[in-house]
Amino acid sequence: MMYTIDDLDTPSLIVDLDIMESNLARMQNYCNRYGIGLRPHIKTHKIPALAQAQMDLGAVGIACQKVGEAEVMADHGLVDIMIPYNILGQRKLERLAALVRRAHIIVSVDSVDVARPMGEYLHRQGLNIKTVIELTSELNRCGVTNAGSALDLAREIDHIQGLEFQGVMVYPSSAQSMQLVTETVDLLRSNSLPVNMISGGGSPTAFHSHEFQGLTEIRAGTYVFNDASYLRKGVCTLEQCALKVITTVISAPTADRVIIDGGSKTFSSDMGYPMGYILEYPEAQIYQMSEEHGFVDVAQCAHRPKVGERLTVIPNHACGTINMHNELIGLRGQNVEAQWEITARGKIQ
Amino acid sequence: MMYTIDDLDTPSLIVDLDIMESNLARMQNYCNRYGIGLRPHIKTHKIPALAQAQMDLGAVGIACQKVGEAEVMADHGLVDIMIPYNILGQRKLERLAALVRRAHIIVSVDSVDVARPMGEYLHRQGLNIKTVIELTSELNRCGVTNAGSALDLAREIDHIQGLEFQGVMVYPSSAQSMQLVTETVDLLRSNSLPVNMISGGGSPTAFHSHEFQGLTEIRAGTYVFNDASYLRKGVCTLEQCALKVITTVISAPTADRVIIDGGSKTFSSDMGYPMGYILEYPEAQIYQMSEEHGFVDVAQCAHRPKVGERLTVIPNHACGTINMHNELIGLRGQNVEAQWEITARGKIQ
Repeated sequence: MMYTIDDLDTPSLIVDLDIMESNLARMQNYCNRYGIGLRPHIKTHKIPALAQAQMDLGAVGIACQKVGEAEVMADHGLVDIMIPYNILGQRKLERLAALVRRAHIIVSVDSVDVARPMGEYLHRQGLNIKTVIELTSELNRCGVTNAGSALDLAREIDHIQGLEFQGVMVYPSSAQSMQLVTETVDLLRSNSLPVNMISGGGSPTAFHSHEFQGLTEIRAGTYVFNDASYLRKGVCTLEQCALKVITTVISAPTADRVIIDGGSKTFSSDMGYPMGYILEYPEAQIYQMSEEHGFVDVAQCAHRPKVGERLTVIPNHACGTINMHNELIGLRGQNVEAQWEITARGKIQ
Repeated sequence: MMYTIDDLDTPSLIVDLDIMESNLARMQNYCNRYGIGLRPHIKTHKIPALAQAQMDLGAVGIACQKVGEAEVMADHGLVDIMIPYNILGQRKLERLAALVRRAHIIVSVDSVDVARPMGEYLHRQGLNIKTVIELTSELNRCGVTNAGSALDLAREIDHIQGLEFQGVMVYPSSAQSMQLVTETVDLLRSNSLPVNMISGGGSPTAFHSHEFQGLTEIRAGTYVFNDASYLRKGVCTLEQCALKVITTVISAPTADRVIIDGGSKTFSSDMGYPMGYILEYPEAQIYQMSEEHGFVDVAQCAHRPKVGERLTVIPNHACGTINMHNELIGLRGQNVEAQWEITARGKIQ
């Protein structure tokens, strides 16, 4: 039996497969053209089959933000995984060692407090792991903050058995953050430390990666789907937004307001106002959410959506929205062609 | 073998069972004292065993926000369920009918567009359902906006076979929203429409329910755990906060900033700034989150948390945080006593 979009209950998380495939090909083709490795970040989709599709198109490996995500992906045959995240603590090191035994794993560190226990533990297990140094960026999150400290840390890593120094990473790879990357790489090389890997990140800057000297690969996640925050920033077009949520108008209490059956437990609260883009009513604004309700201002619409009508919403944050759901439905036109469990959802450890 | 809190990896979602049990007893005792029914809203915990514990303490039934949540609860033997949500569409009506066959279900409606198809469908199945009218509140969400319209809708419901008119509901039951409730109930009764049920809602106002005339029951969810948003509003004390997330400091890149291993995919982005309360460092502020990182300002702390140190965070929004996780660990003191799957998580349909 053929299922169509009309057979889906609401709210349902759907992906337009034609758009998704086009997004995947566009990024891989870009990377191929400039000889930059593409390492898709699976945090956006959390689905092994989509990671495999990205590998089949030519990705050099994948990135997972948490050990638990990497375990799910390795369980499904993905064996080249970078974890760009400081891994700490006895239980995580045990799990990391188990991963190293069955997959090709690269990790990042930003201090000797992370590097030393990791190297010592893996070495005792007779293992070693490829290691890059995370450098800071305008995000002011993790990362070594200057080239001199990165050199000190690289020398430490170079002496820690169990760790194999490979290079540096940054997120995002922007014009600003790449200044420290370039300075650090020059300093490392002039001190005879080999830099095989310079890993950038982030979908918004991905198509500018060739403008930065030396990036060997980019970690990009959101490009698979795009979202309404990217649309507003001009990073993608409406026709490149693959991820949507079908909702139903459940109430129309006043002339200027309707309520849809999806709120922060369907879309997440990420990325602020306005909260998504309604395809059928671009003039409408989702201005507030409670857990299971979306508040829509329809004052600017030529006519008000009716109770029972379905509205298709491009979410603000693809990664945050996927993380709310257990299942993603793939549509070819109006027909249901795929149904994926979001297997790595909730693997935050 | 006895597991303790130290055996848990991070981030882990934990509940202090002594505090939770005290919270549950306090609310039930309050309701008992004033002869008000307590109908716990399971959206906060989404765990059948906790709903059963609430029933065992004397709850009159439970509330579920979505049909899918009600299905999970009914699967686990919870058979008195209110769904205070407009239910629309053929597939949801089929599922509602299946629920009515195996449990005692009450629904709310706020328009004839919702009421009529529901009643007609159920009547064709030989079923009927207890129905209340949702009235609006200062939340400006769903709900009929004036007493006259509520009377019109009640008369419609009274004539629709398959629906059994029972009364009214509101969320939250505040001094402001109760004005419309009282006016509506008076109008309905003076027009010979029986009002058996006046259902209020919301933990923050719950302990004031006796101040409002006529509430037959209250739907409250968050009181089971409390959270940092309640703490800031003075709705609960620090000692009444049962839900916590254990995190690890993974980076300390500058003198005034550390990064913990939980972000918006651990805590949700709900409820704004500051993003939770750190028990060990009350002067610290979680000022930003990305998906797997929490940014902590430690400038006001007497000493800076070290990389590898564990920090215990009371989340801003208990309901949003539970919804991120697959599992809740129950601790008695430092010992792991319970481990619950968050079974109704993600049941947004």
